Amino acid sequence: MAGKQEEVKLLGTTGSPFVFRAILALKLKGIEYEFVEENLGNKSDLLIKYNPIYKKVPVLVHNEKAISESLLIVEYIDEAWKGNPLLPTEPYHKALARFWAKFIDDKVIAVIRKALFTKDEKAREEGVEESFEALQFLENELKDKFFGGEEINFVDIAAAIIAFWVPIFEEVSGVELITSVKFPKLYNWSQELINHPIVKENLPPRDPLLAFFKGLFANIPASK
Amino acid sequence: MAGKQEEVKLLGTTGSPFVFRAILALKLKGIEYEFVEENLGNKSDLLIKYNPIYKKVPVLVHNEKAISESLLIVEYIDEAWKGNPLLPTEPYHKALARFWAKFIDDKVIAVIRKALFTKDEKAREEGVEESFEALQFLENELKDKFFGGEEINFVDIAAAIIAFWVPIFEEVSGVELITSVKFPKLYNWSQELINHPIVKENLPPRDPLLAFFKGLFANIPASK
Repeated sequence: MAGKQEEVKLLGTTGSPFVFRAILALKLKGIEYEFVEENLGNKSDLLIKYNPIYKKVPVLVHNEKAISESLLIVEYIDEAWKGNPLLPTEPYHKALARFWAKFIDDKVIAVIRKALFTKDEKAREEGVEESFEALQFLENELKDKFFGGEEINFVDIAAAIIAFWVPIFEEVSGVELITSVKFPKLYNWSQELINHPIVKENLPPRDPLLAFFKGLFANIPASK
Repeated sequence: MAGKQEEVKLLGTTGSPFVFRAILALKLKGIEYEFVEENLGNKSDLLIKYNPIYKKVPVLVHNEKAISESLLIVEYIDEAWKGNPLLPTEPYHKALARFWAKFIDDKVIAVIRKALFTKDEKAREEGVEESFEALQFLENELKDKFFGGEEINFVDIAAAIIAFWVPIFEEVSGVELITSVKFPKLYNWSQELINHPIVKENLPPRDPLLAFFKGLFANIPASK
């Protein structure tokens, strides 16, 4: 697949944990690409053309073929470029990797949002309880340095939001979820991940993100 | 992978459109399996053991290895047994197949539920509008007899709920969504699909399902 004529564009916004998945996959695979910064307040014709259904980032455009949905983009990247595999090749292990990535999207992110983006005490307490339960499944699943073993894989990429963004959300809301006492393996993993050279080099700057989410949090209506 | 010692079990409930995806994939691939009927009112130890997170069907157990989530089961089946492929092999077409299957799960089913499982007039109208919009994307995507071309593929399996279950929901609610006038290609596709010999032979009996969903619908509270 990969030849001299490759044209790879990533439509995204700096600071999005979903766009970061695509960035990290491209960087881990060593693929050259052009980053096209989107303004979601004023979506480009390119974004509407390439993702007419959701009009969301990230969108990967590879030789005019567009792929959306962050996890599908990562799988596509892994299949279209062969070096540095991100998913296991054995079908059962591949199914498990997909399962955990989907679990993060369907469950973990939802309960963490419930815990950290509310000013309603009762909703927060429920959200914290549900987050602890969901995060415990991830804690139990961590056997090595990364979910992928010694190397970052698909699940680590999906979970990067937990390592870098969730601590920002915790700081904004004043609620702690992932401490070294409660989830020692997950906490160590998050440190390993954000200090991995390729991750570190490509993470968005923390301070502007913190300011952005502080503003978002401040605008959540107070509970009755 | 496939040898004489294979043990393949499917934990499911008759009548579930999600379980049917796994059944259809197994049948299309010609894989022998044992169906273990679950009672969701009284979940078996086996279900809790094999799907501790969601405790939901379907679960495929292949030589003691368990996979849950219906679309992940179908992908696993396609990768573990090589004959009669269900997904394209070319990465871009594979990404598209995954995109449409995910679109059905994330979007189409949600808006159809909103349209057909409510007694609130306003919610229904919104749901119908959103269903038309979502279904139009599928209508535009249908180029051949099936989403997969001349053969049933991953997207057709994901969409079987639209061909067989949605008409039951329409009958129950008295609201029509997929007519031959509004969505001619989707309507023809649904007829092709439910009359495909392997589909037809394995679909659950319609009358008990209709009675079941009539009961479900009757129990939806009337709108204020």
